[in-house]
Amino acid sequence: MVYQRLGKPLPATAAGPNPLVVNVSARHCHLTQEAVEVLFGKGHKLTVHKWLYQEGQFAAKETVTLIGPRSRVISNLRILGPCRTLNQIELAYTDSIALGFDIPLRASGDIKGTPGGMIMGPAGFFEMPDGVIRALRHVHMNPVDAAHYGVKAGDHMRLKIGGPCAITLEKMLVRVDPSFKLEVHIDTDEGNACNLQPDTPCELVK
Amino acid sequence: MVYQRLGKPLPATAAGPNPLVVNVSARHCHLTQEAVEVLFGKGHKLTVHKWLYQEGQFAAKETVTLIGPRSRVISNLRILGPCRTLNQIELAYTDSIALGFDIPLRASGDIKGTPGGMIMGPAGFFEMPDGVIRALRHVHMNPVDAAHYGVKAGDHMRLKIGGPCAITLEKMLVRVDPSFKLEVHIDTDEGNACNLQPDTPCELVK
Repeated sequence: MVYQRLGKPLPATAAGPNPLVVNVSARHCHLTQEAVEVLFGKGHKLTVHKWLYQEGQFAAKETVTLIGPRSRVISNLRILGPCRTLNQIELAYTDSIALGFDIPLRASGDIKGTPGGMIMGPAGFFEMPDGVIRALRHVHMNPVDAAHYGVKAGDHMRLKIGGPCAITLEKMLVRVDPSFKLEVHIDTDEGNACNLQPDTPCELVK
Repeated sequence: MVYQRLGKPLPATAAGPNPLVVNVSARHCHLTQEAVEVLFGKGHKLTVHKWLYQEGQFAAKETVTLIGPRSRVISNLRILGPCRTLNQIELAYTDSIALGFDIPLRASGDIKGTPGGMIMGPAGFFEMPDGVIRALRHVHMNPVDAAHYGVKAGDHMRLKIGGPCAITLEKMLVRVDPSFKLEVHIDTDEGNACNLQPDTPCELVK
């Protein structure tokens, strides 16, 4: 399971037009169709393992092996579909330290100057010249949500997460698109730091 | 390196009687002398690899292998010395998920009812009936520090950590002893969630 649905709707008075969903993204990659064919064979199409919360996005059945700079590997790295126009691997810092990568914190898609990596599939190897990042924690929202919270794309919000090991994530990038459903994406380091569970209270604040 | 020294003194006006040091504790274990002898041989004494910030505490040269419930292992699990009166393994949740352990969040020493584990050294195996935990994030301080911050043992404080992926740790257990030096201990999930670096600003607040 790549994105585990962990959010809990806020009380109606605070919830705004849509319920807040907070999901943990385990390490994963986005690939071009060209890379998929190198890794899985000519003409291969990704197949759906599980639909994600954002419309049309899915965890694929296909996974790859990522080979780190010191020959350490991460097996079963999940591909998220559909294919994109760039190749990008998103790791938590704990993953990157285990692999021996020194990776930067970037917004998804902003991969210029980032380290690359070698990935392996059943049909071959694919070398990425760049694209290995820790993704900036972010919240997806549509314009109605943005108006409710009084924010715009590129702003930062805070996510207060309760429970026995409560934390507040102070800098949460706001991403706005009419197709987006209200959803926060954090990585496994952040999710495990606060032990995010289905009943953990979460509040998004400006 | 088990405890990496990452703290940065606050400006003098805010610093209180002692500088604030924030350290990340990687997974490690505390063992009894009896367990050390089973694992490393009769009469074996732990040897110092690196002194830690708290007086008399050290990372030992000796490490063990922890065997998880599904035969997954963590190699090179560092022992912290000196020996204690109980056996305890402290993991981050990311570690415990990788191993297949379901571990509770506990204050150090409070191990009743926690899962056990099998550890292996060059001279033998040692089975722990309990003692595998995620340690509650905590701050060590002496009574002078406690008076400065207006807190007592068992209270909770907040640690504000700055930088590009800033977080606030909301529930930080206060531990007070005349022998303690002012130091916050967080685990690798917490340290990696905020990418704690030597120049990351940290502030301890009530």
